[in-house]
Amino acid sequence: MDHKEGQYKVADLSLAEEGRKRIEWAESRMPVLMKLREEYSQSQPFAGYKITGCLHVTKETAVLIETLKACGAEVAWSGCNPLSTNDSVAAALALGPNGDGDGVEIYAWYGQDTEAFYWCIDRTIDTTPSTTLDDGADLIFRVHSQFPEKAQDIIGGSEETTTGVHRLRAMAEDGKLLYPVYAVNDAETKWDFDNVYGTGQSTLDGILRASSVLLAGKNFVVAGYGHCGRGVAMRAKGMGANVIVTEIKATAALKATLDGMRVMPMEEAAKVGDIFVTATGMKDVVRGEHFVSMKEGAIVCNTGHYDVELDLVALNDIAVSKRTIREDNVEYTMDNGRKVYVLADGRLVNLAAAEGHPSEVMDMSFANQLQAHLALIRRHEAGEDLPNTVLDLPEELDQEIAGIKLETMGLAIDTLSDEQVAYATDYSAGT
Amino acid sequence: MDHKEGQYKVADLSLAEEGRKRIEWAESRMPVLMKLREEYSQSQPFAGYKITGCLHVTKETAVLIETLKACGAEVAWSGCNPLSTNDSVAAALALGPNGDGDGVEIYAWYGQDTEAFYWCIDRTIDTTPSTTLDDGADLIFRVHSQFPEKAQDIIGGSEETTTGVHRLRAMAEDGKLLYPVYAVNDAETKWDFDNVYGTGQSTLDGILRASSVLLAGKNFVVAGYGHCGRGVAMRAKGMGANVIVTEIKATAALKATLDGMRVMPMEEAAKVGDIFVTATGMKDVVRGEHFVSMKEGAIVCNTGHYDVELDLVALNDIAVSKRTIREDNVEYTMDNGRKVYVLADGRLVNLAAAEGHPSEVMDMSFANQLQAHLALIRRHEAGEDLPNTVLDLPEELDQEIAGIKLETMGLAIDTLSDEQVAYATDYSAGT
Amino acid sequence: MDHKEGQYKVADLSLAEEGRKRIEWAESRMPVLMKLREEYSQSQPFAGYKITGCLHVTKETAVLIETLKACGAEVAWSGCNPLSTNDSVAAALALGPNGDGDGVEIYAWYGQDTEAFYWCIDRTIDTTPSTTLDDGADLIFRVHSQFPEKAQDIIGGSEETTTGVHRLRAMAEDGKLLYPVYAVNDAETKWDFDNVYGTGQSTLDGILRASSVLLAGKNFVVAGYGHCGRGVAMRAKGMGANVIVTEIKATAALKATLDGMRVMPMEEAAKVGDIFVTATGMKDVVRGEHFVSMKEGAIVCNTGHYDVELDLVALNDIAVSKRTIREDNVEYTMDNGRKVYVLADGRLVNLAAAEGHPSEVMDMSFANQLQAHLALIRRHEAGEDLPNTVLDLPEELDQEIAGIKLETMGLAIDTLSDEQVAYATDYSAGT
Amino acid sequence: MDHKEGQYKVADLSLAEEGRKRIEWAESRMPVLMKLREEYSQSQPFAGYKITGCLHVTKETAVLIETLKACGAEVAWSGCNPLSTNDSVAAALALGPNGDGDGVEIYAWYGQDTEAFYWCIDRTIDTTPSTTLDDGADLIFRVHSQFPEKAQDIIGGSEETTTGVHRLRAMAEDGKLLYPVYAVNDAETKWDFDNVYGTGQSTLDGILRASSVLLAGKNFVVAGYGHCGRGVAMRAKGMGANVIVTEIKATAALKATLDGMRVMPMEEAAKVGDIFVTATGMKDVVRGEHFVSMKEGAIVCNTGHYDVELDLVALNDIAVSKRTIREDNVEYTMDNGRKVYVLADGRLVNLAAAEGHPSEVMDMSFANQLQAHLALIRRHEAGEDLPNTVLDLPEELDQEIAGIKLETMGLAIDTLSDEQVAYATDYSAGT
Repeated sequence: MDHKEGQYKVADLSLAEEGRKRIEWAESRMPVLMKLREEYSQSQPFAGYKITGCLHVTKETAVLIETLKACGAEVAWSGCNPLSTNDSVAAALALGPNGDGDGVEIYAWYGQDTEAFYWCIDRTIDTTPSTTLDDGADLIFRVHSQFPEKAQDIIGGSEETTTGVHRLRAMAEDGKLLYPVYAVNDAETKWDFDNVYGTGQSTLDGILRASSVLLAGKNFVVAGYGHCGRGVAMRAKGMGANVIVTEIKATAALKATLDGMRVMPMEEAAKVGDIFVTATGMKDVVRGEHFVSMKEGAIVCNTGHYDVELDLVALNDIAVSKRTIREDNVEYTMDNGRKVYVLADGRLVNLAAAEGHPSEVMDMSFANQLQAHLALIRRHEAGEDLPNTVLDLPEELDQEIAGIKLETMGLAIDTLSDEQVAYATDYSAGT
Repeated sequence: MDHKEGQYKVADLSLAEEGRKRIEWAESRMPVLMKLREEYSQSQPFAGYKITGCLHVTKETAVLIETLKACGAEVAWSGCNPLSTNDSVAAALALGPNGDGDGVEIYAWYGQDTEAFYWCIDRTIDTTPSTTLDDGADLIFRVHSQFPEKAQDIIGGSEETTTGVHRLRAMAEDGKLLYPVYAVNDAETKWDFDNVYGTGQSTLDGILRASSVLLAGKNFVVAGYGHCGRGVAMRAKGMGANVIVTEIKATAALKATLDGMRVMPMEEAAKVGDIFVTATGMKDVVRGEHFVSMKEGAIVCNTGHYDVELDLVALNDIAVSKRTIREDNVEYTMDNGRKVYVLADGRLVNLAAAEGHPSEVMDMSFANQLQAHLALIRRHEAGEDLPNTVLDLPEELDQEIAGIKLETMGLAIDTLSDEQVAYATDYSAGT
Repeated sequence: MDHKEGQYKVADLSLAEEGRKRIEWAESRMPVLMKLREEYSQSQPFAGYKITGCLHVTKETAVLIETLKACGAEVAWSGCNPLSTNDSVAAALALGPNGDGDGVEIYAWYGQDTEAFYWCIDRTIDTTPSTTLDDGADLIFRVHSQFPEKAQDIIGGSEETTTGVHRLRAMAEDGKLLYPVYAVNDAETKWDFDNVYGTGQSTLDGILRASSVLLAGKNFVVAGYGHCGRGVAMRAKGMGANVIVTEIKATAALKATLDGMRVMPMEEAAKVGDIFVTATGMKDVVRGEHFVSMKEGAIVCNTGHYDVELDLVALNDIAVSKRTIREDNVEYTMDNGRKVYVLADGRLVNLAAAEGHPSEVMDMSFANQLQAHLALIRRHEAGEDLPNTVLDLPEELDQEIAGIKLETMGLAIDTLSDEQVAYATDYSAGT
Repeated sequence: MDHKEGQYKVADLSLAEEGRKRIEWAESRMPVLMKLREEYSQSQPFAGYKITGCLHVTKETAVLIETLKACGAEVAWSGCNPLSTNDSVAAALALGPNGDGDGVEIYAWYGQDTEAFYWCIDRTIDTTPSTTLDDGADLIFRVHSQFPEKAQDIIGGSEETTTGVHRLRAMAEDGKLLYPVYAVNDAETKWDFDNVYGTGQSTLDGILRASSVLLAGKNFVVAGYGHCGRGVAMRAKGMGANVIVTEIKATAALKATLDGMRVMPMEEAAKVGDIFVTATGMKDVVRGEHFVSMKEGAIVCNTGHYDVELDLVALNDIAVSKRTIREDNVEYTMDNGRKVYVLADGRLVNLAAAEGHPSEVMDMSFANQLQAHLALIRRHEAGEDLPNTVLDLPEELDQEIAGIKLETMGLAIDTLSDEQVAYATDYSAGT
């Protein structure tokens, strides 16, 4: 472990060169964020502000972090999951773009225990942030529960995930939220892209790296048919799997059916599934009673934010032995003699076993993050008194971000003539 | 033409038996609406009310109409498109379920001119409706522009389409709406099913009946990637076509790209397309300049509500001759010597050349229509003074409708335990 | 019925104009055959020969027939299925391209009984053919069983279907075949296109025209996963159906599984299917025991050549009543109270309820037919003594036909350099 | 490097435990081969014979090798590609199942140079094999070119790949083949499964591990639409890519079109592609002229057997600099300033950057290998004098292997009744 107080604690600084190349690779696939970096590194909108983040330390996050810094911010960062930090990227961030130590304050390494996890977050809170940037709301919850006095200095925050936003809204409704938070997740260019296309591909990528099994012909069970679950189901189908969806919401279940998926309760799915992925945001989705009814060799994993979707406590009770059969893949032999395989300890398989969402989708999600913090600072500087509630990014921003993205892909679209614009809301014409 | 004043004007009453069987076929595929019919035919909630509708006279609409009647309403009806009436269904409606003349007041036949179209609507307004039910807002616009005095007796209305709701919202914003209208289109169990899966299948069905060309390997251009356009694109891809999308909205264009479609402006698409479908709600989407650049043999049609998406005036100017090559398919020979084929005169190809959306999706859309009129009557009877604005149906209704649908399909889903319900909004737990 | 001895017997000559336009529509979609027509109408290779055909009288077949005639042949034709004749096309063929009566000898109408079916074939045999052209081998079987004396004048024949070729090979093996027959079906540009993409689309088209049900979300059972069955399954999946395959061959079943389909015996599939299509070439695939276990409202049809795949005799025994609920769709109420719907009387649903394969695929199949008869005549004129066996068309022909097709679609491919050609078979180079 | 003369030369014996677990993982996914192992380890058919193999040293190959040994063979092995050996698996093979050194003779490590590559093969030839087992024909070519005197002791061989079989057939035609070889590739349960579903998934897996880019929305160019190319194209499409196919064969190009792919020459594809995969078996498919016309950031790789499909010599000439940006991914900066990325040095990306085909498909391919060597030994022992030519495995074997596979997947199929069997070849029945 390499540790320099007030600067970094990372696994191994010697990995920095590898990490730097990974970051460069990501930069080459994130044109929207790089364009915004270029623009705002001129005007330095974050000069004088401290942005503290708690979000998976991947190559894409590094591009966001270094963009925030390039635009004037002081940045302090921790990872938001014990298994999602890429140690080479963390090292590169600590040493900075030139490898000379002019990096950002970062506390993150792969394979932390719970104590270390919170220790890292707390170090970033020590910096007395101007704004907080969350993925799963751990940082903001920590501020609220352990360091509420810091909240008065915090202009606002942002949150990346469906799960996190859901909870922050509950908190705001209870009047417990201490500062305003932008629901970055709820921007169309985030949830309708990152959650669908990002989760879809990266979850399969994680499963393949951890198991290398054939997907074609498998009974592939997806728990939850929200945006993430739909993305996973769609891609599993695209690889030739026979997809089964479990749901608690009738409309979602019906959509799954009309998309060609089978729908059944988990109790039945457990008996026929070959591969299971949870994407619900809910706890105890796959329980002991389900594990025992699974077929020999079933593979089980989670791609939801928290590691609560699989009840591994129950599985450990049922198991007579366990061993790591290959990286990110633990074999449990149950007392009924059958073996099941749990990937990435039930943590998000796309980040723990693969590299998280592809750079191309994080490009847009993180452009929204940048814009959220720009909005917080600007509205603060304009003297606006924002309510302590969950805020939405303006819809025009989605068209702007998507427009830049299309342009960088070399794609053009049509525009309406004045006559057509007028027609759009004209209620005088008939059939 | 068979005409009995104050009762019906339809093409040919002798088609009633064929129409009755079509209606029975539809009933067997619409379990949700039939279940509601059973329930409310007991309580007669519409007793004493007149429901006037203007909506495609198809076998599915007949099931809705006869359900409204069974639940106590007096019904008067016209078709909402000159080419979408099924004459056998109209005859069956006129004569009633037993063929004895105890039918509903109906004015509709296939192939009307504009004058007849409005004549039919006006006859239904003559009945002094309690509520209006629209698909494309022609009836409600007619009330507003020609019979505003009738509005004071009207409790409220409902609207079925994206296009119609869009316009009614503009009208309400301008303070021009004379009574409240439920946006049935905006119910999730309508727009996220009917618009996607219904339009997707029925549009291809219409194209095949009118042309019988091979879809596999064709450059299939879809203008508009909203819910309808996405449905069409998805199904065209499912039939082996190579789909090209044109859009004016960056986010929609980007989604099309990530769904594996090509995106380009119509100017370019016009040159490479084999088949064109418009699904935009906008006028002049395919214009003269596009027709002239099309390949020999291109097929062009529209699946949007109004017949304004293809500029056929411009095409007629360019054309040196035209002839009907087969039903619903007109061959235009342009002055550049090339031929293009326009289906269903640019009117919605799924209704004019095929049978409109399958019964199974209309089942849910029309369950929403029934619920909208139930809500209008109930709130009226409860003495509620609704604002003259566009109203949304409650979200719980979607889960109820989808739940019944799943049940009738023999599908079960999971339910949350109390502990899980509590977890959903718990912000005290962390990673 | 319009009948002129020795010239035609068709349903209604007044339909000729409509039929002529249909044929013109088909011509515009069959560039390969039209190119061959142009080429060989110069050299008149068939001058002096009589080609007798027994093949579905569709608009595409008309293009083949008129091409044969344009290249010098005298043609006599009958339909190869009682429900597949398009009466307008038959009328147009009888009256000829100019409508002046200079047509071909044709005996075909929609809705024949068995006696009429054979009467028509026999009239074409009366002409003492030089070659026979079959689809399902009815003509050639009739020659063998009823008019064996005609065989000595017959140079050879051709056969269009998998089923027919299968039987002719059995016949040849038994030494019963009286003249050589080209297995047109076995040309790659026939079986790997027509059978897959043609059957796939046209079968769904037939089902939709006869039922208009939603395919998305349906349990869609395909019996047989040969080329035809795979095409149907692929397209049903593309429309959002959940496809179940029944098979008797392990390799085919396994492929279905890896293509994302479910595999089970018909006994189980019968209980869960919503729609059934047989594509096996085998008899009694769906039997009485299957019908009785079907769900209320199940739809059953066949797309195989003969009408033996559904055991309708058994169904009629079980049924307490039956009625035609809509065109090509008969409702059987079984003694268990449930209703099932049989499309097109169990005859090929794509031809009886829709228009058969799209012109674009028949273009290649019929180019092969033309080439087969050219080969028969040329080899005969060259004095070759062909054995009485089933012959394959040369593989180069496939590349030639596909090459023309690509060219007419505006598509280019690569060619190998001399160095690359040499490399292809070089076994001196290593890793 | 760990080296024990006459026993093994592998990278690192200490990796054996990890390798052993990998092999166990593969065993759990290869039920067909394991069933054959169980059966033949009783009868020891290979007792007294030496089987020498040259095939990618993966976990699946290890299951084959240890099955051959369990059935009595003495085995000597080398890898058939410099980048495809898994070092942990090689170590485990060297030390044997119990880790006590009772392994097989093996010479293989990741990252060999050409000299070492042949040295390894030559060591296995030193053992004077009874049969040879090839993947790409390097071993058999080496016997023919360097050790022809060994051929007289060799009963026969087998070959795994399309490319290898193609060359061996050329060799046999020239009368140069010194012993008979079973074309394992040509078994339906090999080429129609492994080549399609195996290559499809594993190629994408390799690309993702080496690049982690988003596939959705990418222009994904596949050179070659044979079985391998079709598998890659199908899966790329399933992940949301927009697939472009280049071909030299008209029928294959046309199929690609009807499967919804775009077809164009490489010259055009080079300009628009984002990702390129070659699967042709041909050399110089992507040439210097293509690299220079590529877009900034293009990713190029090969999944064909030999590393000749990309002309990297030409690329090196054009490049002004190159560096490894991440594992298996080299960045070339060309003199036009643009960068392209070549994965796995142009060697098969699925084996070099991922783990090769999933165990589930190798299960069938290797069952065929086992059967091929059983057939060679049995026919030899029966005194048959096989010609020095390329032999096909019997078709019944495919049904047997697929049947076992289905059974282990818990899937049942139908069987024909006697009456149905009789019907299949009955040519007396008509329409």
